[in-house]
Amino acid sequence: MRAWVEINTQEARLAADASTKRYEQGRALSAIDGMPIGIKDLLMTKDMPTRMGSPLYENNFPKQDSACVQALRAAGAVVLGKTVTTELGMSHPGPTTNPFSPEHTPGGSSSGSAAVIGACMVPAAIGTQVVGSVIRPASFCANYALKPTMGALNRGERQGFSQSHIGVHAGSLTDMWRVATEIAKRSGGDPGYPGLFGGPELHAAVRPARLVVMEAQGWSELDADTRSAFEELLSDLSGAGVEIIRRSSHSMVELFERAIGESLEITRDVCAYEMRWSLENLVQQFGGGLSDSLTSRLDIARQMTIDDYRLVLSRREAARTAHALIAHIADAIISPASIGPAPRLDNKGVDSGVVHTTGLPNYNAVTSLLGAPTITIPLLAVGGLPVGIQVVGQQHTDDRVAGISRWIAETIPARSI
Amino acid sequence: MRAWVEINTQEARLAADASTKRYEQGRALSAIDGMPIGIKDLLMTKDMPTRMGSPLYENNFPKQDSACVQALRAAGAVVLGKTVTTELGMSHPGPTTNPFSPEHTPGGSSSGSAAVIGACMVPAAIGTQVVGSVIRPASFCANYALKPTMGALNRGERQGFSQSHIGVHAGSLTDMWRVATEIAKRSGGDPGYPGLFGGPELHAAVRPARLVVMEAQGWSELDADTRSAFEELLSDLSGAGVEIIRRSSHSMVELFERAIGESLEITRDVCAYEMRWSLENLVQQFGGGLSDSLTSRLDIARQMTIDDYRLVLSRREAARTAHALIAHIADAIISPASIGPAPRLDNKGVDSGVVHTTGLPNYNAVTSLLGAPTITIPLLAVGGLPVGIQVVGQQHTDDRVAGISRWIAETIPARSI
Repeated sequence: MRAWVEINTQEARLAADASTKRYEQGRALSAIDGMPIGIKDLLMTKDMPTRMGSPLYENNFPKQDSACVQALRAAGAVVLGKTVTTELGMSHPGPTTNPFSPEHTPGGSSSGSAAVIGACMVPAAIGTQVVGSVIRPASFCANYALKPTMGALNRGERQGFSQSHIGVHAGSLTDMWRVATEIAKRSGGDPGYPGLFGGPELHAAVRPARLVVMEAQGWSELDADTRSAFEELLSDLSGAGVEIIRRSSHSMVELFERAIGESLEITRDVCAYEMRWSLENLVQQFGGGLSDSLTSRLDIARQMTIDDYRLVLSRREAARTAHALIAHIADAIISPASIGPAPRLDNKGVDSGVVHTTGLPNYNAVTSLLGAPTITIPLLAVGGLPVGIQVVGQQHTDDRVAGISRWIAETIPARSI
Repeated sequence: MRAWVEINTQEARLAADASTKRYEQGRALSAIDGMPIGIKDLLMTKDMPTRMGSPLYENNFPKQDSACVQALRAAGAVVLGKTVTTELGMSHPGPTTNPFSPEHTPGGSSSGSAAVIGACMVPAAIGTQVVGSVIRPASFCANYALKPTMGALNRGERQGFSQSHIGVHAGSLTDMWRVATEIAKRSGGDPGYPGLFGGPELHAAVRPARLVVMEAQGWSELDADTRSAFEELLSDLSGAGVEIIRRSSHSMVELFERAIGESLEITRDVCAYEMRWSLENLVQQFGGGLSDSLTSRLDIARQMTIDDYRLVLSRREAARTAHALIAHIADAIISPASIGPAPRLDNKGVDSGVVHTTGLPNYNAVTSLLGAPTITIPLLAVGGLPVGIQVVGQQHTDDRVAGISRWIAETIPARSI
C-alpha cells in the first residue's frame, strides 16, 4: 500500500524490549505501554525525518518530537514509523493505496495512518485534520477514528491553522480512546486550551435518546447505495428506540444546516489565508516545487485581504453559534463520514475550486470548522469498499461522543450493499 | 550597547536602494517604505540566522521570514539586522546594556530592540512579549512601544505560548502605529484572530474623560521617586480635566485589582506548562545548555498536571472577565510601565521563584495575561534613567489607545526627578 514513509525497526525494537521489561516487572507506564503506533509524517519524530509529503522537505530532520509524540513515548508506546501524508497535509496525494483495493485512494491527508489501520498493521496511528484529513480517510479505510474537540490534543509546533486538530486512527474504540487520553494527560491541549476531557478508559456505552441527521454539503452528493445503506442504519437506530430528527422536522436544525451550508467555501478561504505566509516562504526559498493544487490555494490567498479573512472568520463563528444552539435538541449528530466509498486513484474531484484526488471532504469541512468532536465508526460497506458513519458532539464532550459511538457500534449491525 | 546580533549591511543597502528608486518613481509601497527596522532574534529572517539568545540555536538558519518580517519587506521596509533577545525570550540576559547607562540593563526579553530605539539607531524595531518583554524594556530605554491586543499581529511559527504577542518599539507614536498597521494589513493576525484594527495613520488625539489607575502587583514595589513622578503626572492629568479613578474610589476597580492580583504567578504557570514540550526536546537533543533560570521554569512545568494548567487558565479567564467589566468605567487604564528605572546589570530580582536580571515584570504580566492593548510613553526620568507610563485598553481598541496615548504625549509634560 506504500503507507509508510519510513520505519525505524531498530528504535522500535529497543522501545518494545524496554516495554516488555516494564511489564515483566509489573511497572507498565500506561494502558498503551508497548503499543506500536504510526505517526503522520507532518509531525516531528526525533529519530526520523519529517518530510511532510513535499520534495521541499526531503532533507528536513528536526531531531525533536512533536508534543504528542513526546507524550506517546512517555506513555511507553512504540513509535514504529512515519506514515504518508499528502503534500503539506493538503490535496496533492502521496503514493499510498487503499488497503481494500489497490485501485482506490486511501483518502487524505492522513493517507498512511488510515491505510495502516485498515490493513491491521498497528493498533493505532496519529493523523491530523484541518478539513477532512482524519475522518475521510478513516471512512475509506474502515478505521475507528477520533477528531477531537478543537485544541484538545497539543499540536505543538504545527499551529499555522486555526482549525487544525491532532486525531487518532485505531482498530477499536478502546485503543482510540486510550491513545487520545494518554496523549492529553501528558502533553495537554493546544496552548490556551483545556485539553481533552474524560477518564483514562473508554466511556460506558450511552444509548442516545435523540440523534440529529446532518445533511451538510454531503447529502446531495451521496451516491445512491451509500444513501440506502445509511437510511437502513437510521431505521435500525429508530428500531432501537432512538428518535431521529431531520432538518425537515425541526426548524432549529434547518437553521443549523443553513449556517453550515458553505463550510467547504469558508474552510477553503480560512485555510488559504492562514497558510499564505508559509507558502510564500517556500516559493521564495525554492522558487518552485509546489503542486498545482497547492499553487491554486496560494492564488486564492493572494487575492484575499485581511477584511476578507475577518468576514470568513465571522461566518465560521456564526456556524459555531448555530451548532451550540442545537445542543438541547439531541444527544449528538449523525451522518455518513464521506459521500461514499473511496474514489478511484485517477479521480479528479473538485472542492470549491481545488482539485482533490483523495476524495471530497463534504462531510468533514463542517466538523473541522465547528471544532466539534467527531468519531467515525466503520459500519457500512458499499460495493466492497468501507464507508464510515460519524457521530458529532458539542465541544468538550469527546468522552460522551465516544460513549454514544460505543453504543452504536455494539448495537447496530454493520451492513454491506 | 551590544544590541545587535547581526547586521546585514549588504542586503539592507540593496533594499534601501530599491526603495529610493520607488520614491523617485513616485511608487512607494507604503508609509514605511525605506524605513530601517531591527528584528528581535526570536523571529526568522531569510537572510540571517535565528539564534534566539541560546547557544543551542547557534547554527539555526531557517532561510525563511516570519510572517511579520515578510509583511515588512512587502511594505518596502529595510530589514537591517537582528537584535539581541534573552535566552529563548525568557529571563537569562544577553550582552546588551542600557543606552542611557552602560551599567544598567536594557530590560528584556526584547533587549536589543529597546536599546536600538533608545539610542536612535533605527526608527522602529520588532519585539515580542509573553510576560513583559516589549513594554518593560521600552520603559527602561525611553521607547514608544505597542504590545497590541492578543493575536493582533501574526506570530507565524512562534505560537508555543497562548499569551505571546508581536510588538513594535519606535521613536515616535506615528512610526510605531505605521509599522504595526502595515504589518497587519499584509500578514494579518494570528490564525483565527481578526488582526489589528485601525486605519493606516495614527489615530487623532483623544482626551480621555476618565482613566483608571492600575496598581496590579507593581504599586507596592514602586520606588519612592518613581511614585512621586507618577503622582505628579496624575495631577497634571487632573488639571487637564481627566477624572482619575482609583481602586479605593470604585468597587469595580477594587474587584478588577483582586482578579489581577496574582498575574505574575498565573503567567509563570501558564508559560511554564506551555513551554515544557519544547524545553524537553532541547534537553533530550542536547543534554544541557539551558540556563539555571530556564531550568527552574522547566522544573515548575514538570510538577504541573493538566488539571493544574486548566485551573490556572480559568484564573486567567476570570481576570479577563474582570477587565471587560470595567470597560464602562473609564476610557483606559494608566500605570507606570515598570516599577522604576532599569536596575543595574548585576541585580538579581526574583519574580515568583524565577531570577530576573532584566528587571521585574510586575506591571507587565498583567497586560500580557489580559491580552489587552498597551502602549508605553517615555514621560518620566528617575535618577537620570527613563521610566515609561503605560496606557491599557480593552481588546481590539488598539487604535483608540493610540489616540489616548497621543493626547497624553502631546498634553502632559515629561518630568525628571
